[in-house]
Amino acid sequence: MHLLYWIELFGVVVFAMAGAIEAARNRFDLFGVLVLAFVSALGGGTLRDLLLDISPLAWIRDLTLAYVALISGFAMFLLAKFVRIPFRMLLYADAIGLAAFTVSGTQVSINMGLPGLVVVMMGMASGIFGGIIRDIMANEIPLIFRRDVYATASLVGAVWVYWSQVHQLSPAVSIMVGFLLIMLIRFAAIRWHLSLPSFLNTASYRKENHPEEL
Amino acid sequence: MHLLYWIELFGVVVFAMAGAIEAARNRFDLFGVLVLAFVSALGGGTLRDLLLDISPLAWIRDLTLAYVALISGFAMFLLAKFVRIPFRMLLYADAIGLAAFTVSGTQVSINMGLPGLVVVMMGMASGIFGGIIRDIMANEIPLIFRRDVYATASLVGAVWVYWSQVHQLSPAVSIMVGFLLIMLIRFAAIRWHLSLPSFLNTASYRKENHPEEL
Amino acid sequence: MHLLYWIELFGVVVFAMAGAIEAARNRFDLFGVLVLAFVSALGGGTLRDLLLDISPLAWIRDLTLAYVALISGFAMFLLAKFVRIPFRMLLYADAIGLAAFTVSGTQVSINMGLPGLVVVMMGMASGIFGGIIRDIMANEIPLIFRRDVYATASLVGAVWVYWSQVHQLSPAVSIMVGFLLIMLIRFAAIRWHLSLPSFLNTASYRKENHPEEL
Repeated sequence: MHLLYWIELFGVVVFAMAGAIEAARNRFDLFGVLVLAFVSALGGGTLRDLLLDISPLAWIRDLTLAYVALISGFAMFLLAKFVRIPFRMLLYADAIGLAAFTVSGTQVSINMGLPGLVVVMMGMASGIFGGIIRDIMANEIPLIFRRDVYATASLVGAVWVYWSQVHQLSPAVSIMVGFLLIMLIRFAAIRWHLSLPSFLNTASYRKENHPEEL
Repeated sequence: MHLLYWIELFGVVVFAMAGAIEAARNRFDLFGVLVLAFVSALGGGTLRDLLLDISPLAWIRDLTLAYVALISGFAMFLLAKFVRIPFRMLLYADAIGLAAFTVSGTQVSINMGLPGLVVVMMGMASGIFGGIIRDIMANEIPLIFRRDVYATASLVGAVWVYWSQVHQLSPAVSIMVGFLLIMLIRFAAIRWHLSLPSFLNTASYRKENHPEEL
Repeated sequence: MHLLYWIELFGVVVFAMAGAIEAARNRFDLFGVLVLAFVSALGGGTLRDLLLDISPLAWIRDLTLAYVALISGFAMFLLAKFVRIPFRMLLYADAIGLAAFTVSGTQVSINMGLPGLVVVMMGMASGIFGGIIRDIMANEIPLIFRRDVYATASLVGAVWVYWSQVHQLSPAVSIMVGFLLIMLIRFAAIRWHLSLPSFLNTASYRKENHPEEL
């Protein structure tokens, strides 16, 4: 399906940019930037292909994905030399990439005829893994664990795409709506700092208070 | 073998709980908790299946494993809202999971007829990887590198399971004894702070003392 | 090809030693040291085999690799008990391992008839992944992101090996020259602190200055 391919390519562009922005914040050199851009952009799809035993990997089958990731990372590297890039841009680029990879991962799994739970999990894994590996490599706690309504947005989109196609909605419509849904939930969460319930009463036993335990 | 399955399921429960406890200590939100529970509980088995090229993955073949991981993580999330969960519980849950996944990973590798060294390594990898990935995601040094007699316990259990079956012990007895062995070694190590020899004379050149080197 | 095997074995030895040195710096116990040595030494090749869907993995096919990694790590553990090992040795061992695994990963991919971009990327991934996973496990920012001319050295060597064989140079000569090339570039970079352009103007918006953003 052409639409799916374009959404995936779009996800590669924005995730590569998000990776390059994070590299900028940690003052990586040019190749550090390209590595982080590449891994962010293609990590989620690579994990999905490894878990589902799809071979060869998406970016080996289709080198366009690899070239686009590298070029996007390089462009952001150049841009960051001249313009101050706000942290907020990382969040928004990450949100768009999350939306793109969640729906494409979900659709690939639907096309393989997998059961619903696996479809949803593969969609989520494709969407969130690139960002997780990006943040781990830069030695930060992944956004997913710091930011509100992150995995939730991915979950809602993946469930929507699966549910709507079980109910015979056309894949193209299902994917477009799912993509917008995830993106808008994340944009709203970033804008208004929405959050899910967390371990509110846990502050009293956080590790800072118990250094002797470590 | 039914016993093996129940031990694996038990390991999923306790590792999911350990993941949720660690998430609590870092104040992750609900979905962060579920992701960490899931990855902790199924990460070791997934790595084993990827390395041995077993497809589909255990938790895709048998969705019960995935559901149990999510439900256990969610239960611990609710519990932590009302009760103060001591850090020690994370250690004990981790010990039980280590025991369960080490013996199940070892047994799966024996059943595939792999050579002894690989059997032992796959057993250890299955046992320790879930905890490693849990700690990396929470941006901490993995327990295995901070805690005494951790990998050792896994090693002893994996060697026992392999050695005893080479000598014709019935798999069921071999697994049960191996499970108890690992669990008791870890419990003793946690209780009495047992430790292996470490780089004792290395303190003088630790990186804190040589910041200029970085 | 015998040469390729010996270079890979040599890479296993030095990467295992680099892993053990890093473990020493973080005061891991004996098994922590062995795990870090093993993962450093065989991580790059394992990733390459997973991505290219080669099964069984190199160190399962040929247990010598696994034994050599463990013995090298153990030897360094003993050595560090008696001798003070300077941080610089970690950098040089890492450089030699980077050179060895880059050329072996590149050659394996050439032998599989993969396209040029994939050949180069697999060579780089084989060379740098062991060091990345070593540093992530020890909770540090990977060398590749802190050190100058790191990925660049790997890139130059991988491109050389591919390009020279496209132009009919004998693989043995191509590999030896590539190995020396990477090693010498890294040695020079370590010795004279050479560096690539980085995000020079980014200091002003580094995260330290914007703690509220996190």
